[in-house]
Amino acid sequence: MSYARQMLDACPRVLNIDTGLLAATLEALNDCTQACVADTDCDLGEQNVIEMVTCIRLCLDCVDICAATAGVISRQTDYDATVVRPLLEACVASCKSCGDECERHAHMPHCRVCAEACRRCEQACRDLLDATK
Amino acid sequence: MSYARQMLDACPRVLNIDTGLLAATLEALNDCTQACVADTDCDLGEQNVIEMVTCIRLCLDCVDICAATAGVISRQTDYDATVVRPLLEACVASCKSCGDECERHAHMPHCRVCAEACRRCEQACRDLLDATK
Amino acid sequence: MSYARQMLDACPRVLNIDTGLLAATLEALNDCTQACVADTDCDLGEQNVIEMVTCIRLCLDCVDICAATAGVISRQTDYDATVVRPLLEACVASCKSCGDECERHAHMPHCRVCAEACRRCEQACRDLLDATK
Amino acid sequence: MSYARQMLDACPRVLNIDTGLLAATLEALNDCTQACVADTDCDLGEQNVIEMVTCIRLCLDCVDICAATAGVISRQTDYDATVVRPLLEACVASCKSCGDECERHAHMPHCRVCAEACRRCEQACRDLLDATK
Repeated sequence: MSYARQMLDACPRVLNIDTGLLAATLEALNDCTQACVADTDCDLGEQNVIEMVTCIRLCLDCVDICAATAGVISRQTDYDATVVRPLLEACVASCKSCGDECERHAHMPHCRVCAEACRRCEQACRDLLDATK
Repeated sequence: MSYARQMLDACPRVLNIDTGLLAATLEALNDCTQACVADTDCDLGEQNVIEMVTCIRLCLDCVDICAATAGVISRQTDYDATVVRPLLEACVASCKSCGDECERHAHMPHCRVCAEACRRCEQACRDLLDATK
Repeated sequence: MSYARQMLDACPRVLNIDTGLLAATLEALNDCTQACVADTDCDLGEQNVIEMVTCIRLCLDCVDICAATAGVISRQTDYDATVVRPLLEACVASCKSCGDECERHAHMPHCRVCAEACRRCEQACRDLLDATK
Repeated sequence: MSYARQMLDACPRVLNIDTGLLAATLEALNDCTQACVADTDCDLGEQNVIEMVTCIRLCLDCVDICAATAGVISRQTDYDATVVRPLLEACVASCKSCGDECERHAHMPHCRVCAEACRRCEQACRDLLDATK
């Protein structure tokens, strides 16, 4: 069981949201952050780095937004939809842009893996948005 | 002149947005991040810390979102409204919630200063949203 | 296989360090970051929050340092011992302090899980330090 | 007066360190973070981006470490030298490497400004280290 899930189960707090869904989103966010940090560095090591510039920029945005989203949705007690919903929407859009760009470079294994992490995170954030409507 | 402004002026890139406005927003975001990090610690040092719990949580959210927003709007070249607009909206909402809560504790100087930093950042992000409509 | 490991395997780069060890450290850092973010919020929900103040502060330090360390050791190409070694030492010390404090509250399940995440991360960073001597 | 200084003055806490020195270090860290985030994006916009790869990597490290250091030294109450000293040493080394590399590209105005921000931050962290011996 992941630490995200263990911590949610261990916390003396009543959540208005399914713990499994929240834990899955947190894991997807943390995985996507790690994948995008790593992909940035792999991109910088490619000989045709000039063609990777958009990918690098989108990965850097994705890191910043996924990390912030993981922090905010970890603090569930004073849930505030006016903050969390647009943040999740920004995260969905950032993961989608980054995943699309990584897929364009999917012949590079690092971009293929990163695209997968972005897709999973995009879907997880969409699921969380749907569940909190 | 602030480093945010100096860096914007030094960068060989055509911006679709007023440099002064963007620099002011970056400064407000960085100031708000610093103020909220500091206010969290001041709150934790108050004897009635139990009454500061909401303030601490809102400050922590504000730190995560302001820092991410500063990163994303610093990368202006591949501006993507589907990412930046909801992120700025989340930032406005987070600064508003945090500023409101800090104002409730404005008899404590650290919360009064933090409220001011949140207000300025909320307004700066609103101005940037208006300018990019 | 974790994303950290997949990304390391997918990156066209010769590492001077064992990939398994590096992946394990990255996972431990990311797990510890998530656990400490979550523990902070659980602590803030405890009725005796005044007794949790030190724990909260140490968790906040641990989040900042573990997240930075994960970023830096993900960028292995231009490895610089003068940066990485003291950063890992700071991370070991932060995880140790935070783990010790969480263990003092181990009757609370969230602190027990967080202590475990800190211990694992402390050990992983020590192992990485030993391997790069 | 900067927000860093205002918040330090507003916080009901006895510091073992000069407030002016601490505020100056916090400002230098925040400025350096902002400059390095911006410089990364300017570097990515250069036609000879392949020659900027090392600069980008060092800026990314510098962002992670300076941001973490600002967070940790903002929480002064439970000061722990075993954490803060190596973290400041990592920060000095990271600012030095990044400043040296930026100076190599000082014919580009963005790298010249970023080098200056790194130098100031390196010196501020050294001064803080000296003051806490």
